[in-house]
Amino acid sequence: MSFTFEDKIRSIFYPQSVAIVGASNDERKLGGLAARAILRSGFKGRVFLVNTRSRSNGENDGHKIYSSIASLPQEVESFVFVVPREEIPESLEAAGQKGGKVAVIIASGFQEVGEAGKQWQETVRQIAERYGMIIVGPNSVGVVNFHNGLNATFAHTWCELFSPGGIAVLTQSGGVGQTLMSQLANHNLGVSKYIHLGNRANLEFADMLRYFEQDEDTRIVILFLEGTDDARRLYRAMRSCASKKKIVALHGGVTGKGSRAALSHTGSMAGVRRIYQGAFRQAGVLEVETTEEAADVAKALYMLPPLKNPGAGVFVFTHTAGPSILATDVLSERGVPLPEPPERARRALESFLPDFASLQNPIDMGGGAAFNHYMYVKAMDAILAEDTTGAAIIIYSHTNDPAFRFPVEAVREVRDKYAKPVMVSIVASAEVIKHEMNEWEQAGFPVYLSPERAAKVMARFYQFYRLRHLRGQEL
Amino acid sequence: MSFTFEDKIRSIFYPQSVAIVGASNDERKLGGLAARAILRSGFKGRVFLVNTRSRSNGENDGHKIYSSIASLPQEVESFVFVVPREEIPESLEAAGQKGGKVAVIIASGFQEVGEAGKQWQETVRQIAERYGMIIVGPNSVGVVNFHNGLNATFAHTWCELFSPGGIAVLTQSGGVGQTLMSQLANHNLGVSKYIHLGNRANLEFADMLRYFEQDEDTRIVILFLEGTDDARRLYRAMRSCASKKKIVALHGGVTGKGSRAALSHTGSMAGVRRIYQGAFRQAGVLEVETTEEAADVAKALYMLPPLKNPGAGVFVFTHTAGPSILATDVLSERGVPLPEPPERARRALESFLPDFASLQNPIDMGGGAAFNHYMYVKAMDAILAEDTTGAAIIIYSHTNDPAFRFPVEAVREVRDKYAKPVMVSIVASAEVIKHEMNEWEQAGFPVYLSPERAAKVMARFYQFYRLRHLRGQEL
Repeated sequence: MSFTFEDKIRSIFYPQSVAIVGASNDERKLGGLAARAILRSGFKGRVFLVNTRSRSNGENDGHKIYSSIASLPQEVESFVFVVPREEIPESLEAAGQKGGKVAVIIASGFQEVGEAGKQWQETVRQIAERYGMIIVGPNSVGVVNFHNGLNATFAHTWCELFSPGGIAVLTQSGGVGQTLMSQLANHNLGVSKYIHLGNRANLEFADMLRYFEQDEDTRIVILFLEGTDDARRLYRAMRSCASKKKIVALHGGVTGKGSRAALSHTGSMAGVRRIYQGAFRQAGVLEVETTEEAADVAKALYMLPPLKNPGAGVFVFTHTAGPSILATDVLSERGVPLPEPPERARRALESFLPDFASLQNPIDMGGGAAFNHYMYVKAMDAILAEDTTGAAIIIYSHTNDPAFRFPVEAVREVRDKYAKPVMVSIVASAEVIKHEMNEWEQAGFPVYLSPERAAKVMARFYQFYRLRHLRGQEL
Repeated sequence: MSFTFEDKIRSIFYPQSVAIVGASNDERKLGGLAARAILRSGFKGRVFLVNTRSRSNGENDGHKIYSSIASLPQEVESFVFVVPREEIPESLEAAGQKGGKVAVIIASGFQEVGEAGKQWQETVRQIAERYGMIIVGPNSVGVVNFHNGLNATFAHTWCELFSPGGIAVLTQSGGVGQTLMSQLANHNLGVSKYIHLGNRANLEFADMLRYFEQDEDTRIVILFLEGTDDARRLYRAMRSCASKKKIVALHGGVTGKGSRAALSHTGSMAGVRRIYQGAFRQAGVLEVETTEEAADVAKALYMLPPLKNPGAGVFVFTHTAGPSILATDVLSERGVPLPEPPERARRALESFLPDFASLQNPIDMGGGAAFNHYMYVKAMDAILAEDTTGAAIIIYSHTNDPAFRFPVEAVREVRDKYAKPVMVSIVASAEVIKHEMNEWEQAGFPVYLSPERAAKVMARFYQFYRLRHLRGQEL
């Protein structure tokens, strides 16, 4: 039986069996953390622990510790190496002989440290090639599949911190990967898969994008990359994946480290950035500027229905002028249309809003709407009905008083009637409205805690769907 | 005994006595919320409740409710009006006769609703003038002094939510004021005073800036303004206040509402924005772009020592390359110098850092430093000692493991030795590191939960002190 490269990529996330090479009982060591991660995350496949220098009683948490890869009692599909660089070649050779298809190499000291490391990496790559193995890394934090509890990293709390969901994180940097994961956790967003490619000995962004294009658990891919060795292949894979999934990209290292000199001397890096920007845009990939924005935008794309009419505009509903002005500043600076209500909607608004309400966009219903939220519901019913309305932002200032809770269910009903994207900005501290925020998000309204943040996300959301419309891509 | 305007502004925040006109027992009404706010916030002055239509037993929470202002048993320094617009003139007249110096007018329906309201506002202004009263508002959320428990608003939970501190909020919009307050609450920052000027019948930004210039409890003023009627006076007040206090300004409404037409037709609003930008800069006021940034930056200016040498640069210390690259991208795009370590510091670093550590800036000590944080302490000791080092950012990825806690006390000792500003960016979700974040902040290190956010704040921090140096202002 022979396996295609695609089958093997599947082995990264769905192995029948995993061996942790370098497993330890000492949870102050990476080998201890890695053993704990896979043993406690609910993974149902077989797990083998290997340590050639084990001084323990030969077991960890009820699992036997094998003294060599060769002595493992069966073939093993995936090997996680938590041993120093110097031990990788021999271990990898042994893993290949034991039927390994995937090697997750956590050790550093390879290409990223310069010439000496490059040689080590080439050696490792050749061994993997000989056995047809895929290498995740080296210099990788590892991989996680949140849907089957496979935590092949040393971040042992991840499967507790995250619920399974539809967002995949594909990153060149472990630290940025963790930053993105933290931002997703702050938004209570579920994750499908995490993979840190590290030095990419024989596994590229393009391969993973092809994989995520097919992966049923993944609807959105957050991609962090600094650079690639095969830009053309990356571009094709992005374009293909973006036709089925939503990709949010963050491009880093443009001015950092070595690139800095180039920038200050010749300005050439600015050109490289523009090439990436153009490639993202052409491929239908939404580029964002910061890790926070990546998570903010992924949240909206994940939770909201698509923007169906790219010519339609955004309406802002509020009882508080200032924050809505800040939000419309952001929207209009970014070119999002802010239409006025058509005549019919205007008459409907006039029938129940107070005289002093502003019927222009933003629809400012006045202070009374802070206490009688049904004004929002009625106003949205009038405005969302119009073809010129593409999406809406609700902005309100929290009264800190349980007597005046927003009727989330009623808003959900109006939203469902028109199936248009609606996001919510609540002016309040996170602590105070935890419960309410949860209620909104369960009903499918992404919540942001500042009006500008909501507006920036809305602008990106528009940018994304306009790009899709332009390219004739599926929404 | 006669009172100057300055004395009366003091009466806004330090009245001996306050009357709530329109006080109610019904906490679903503004008059009920306002009564609750002042009665439960620890204010030690005398409080009188007035309601001409009270149907209750004539008391609220043990406080008698008077049926008219005239029947109050003594002169009262400050009146808070929670009655409709139509009742304000007569009530204000009565308050003037009862010795009132300050009128906080919460009612709306004045200048902000157009011509009809303008007339009401002029009437109210003239009555106040006749009695020499200061009006906060109309159309104001009110004022709070967090140091004496005076909560003259209907936001009855504010004195519970905030600890007294040194940041004042001076705002043209109640909603933006509350947004700023919420952001400060999320940062656990203490507030000195809050004032929402609303329609500014006879109290201007310039007056309040003059006041805050002298106010001992205030070290930083966060200013939100959309516009002013006396730009020259505002500029002079900003310049004067900025010579003693730090001012962070947010300018809104540039493209919003009525301004939008002007912008799209003639582009003239862009010119107005540039005039404000120039005025802020000339006055030594630090302009920021969003409410979140206002709070982020206020936090750094509040907690950190000044940047003494404006030519010195920022060093980034890390064990995780990616986030530090994102941070240095932000810093270099914003023109913050990122020097390399001088020879002496370099030799010191080489003596204890592993071979593969990067001794360039960012100082990347490698994965080991994620577990042995004393590497950070030693590296900072070597780098902060140099004159070319102005400030530092510590970036680390949280291990989620109590065994590897950062030695905050040891970092504090090094920081104190050199008295240079140091901020911290922790890659982790807010929930996970609540305790640790608190420990850092108690030791005087502002913490930000994304590397770009920390870097943006550092860039503003540099901008602020460079401006001060340029203008020869006190640091």
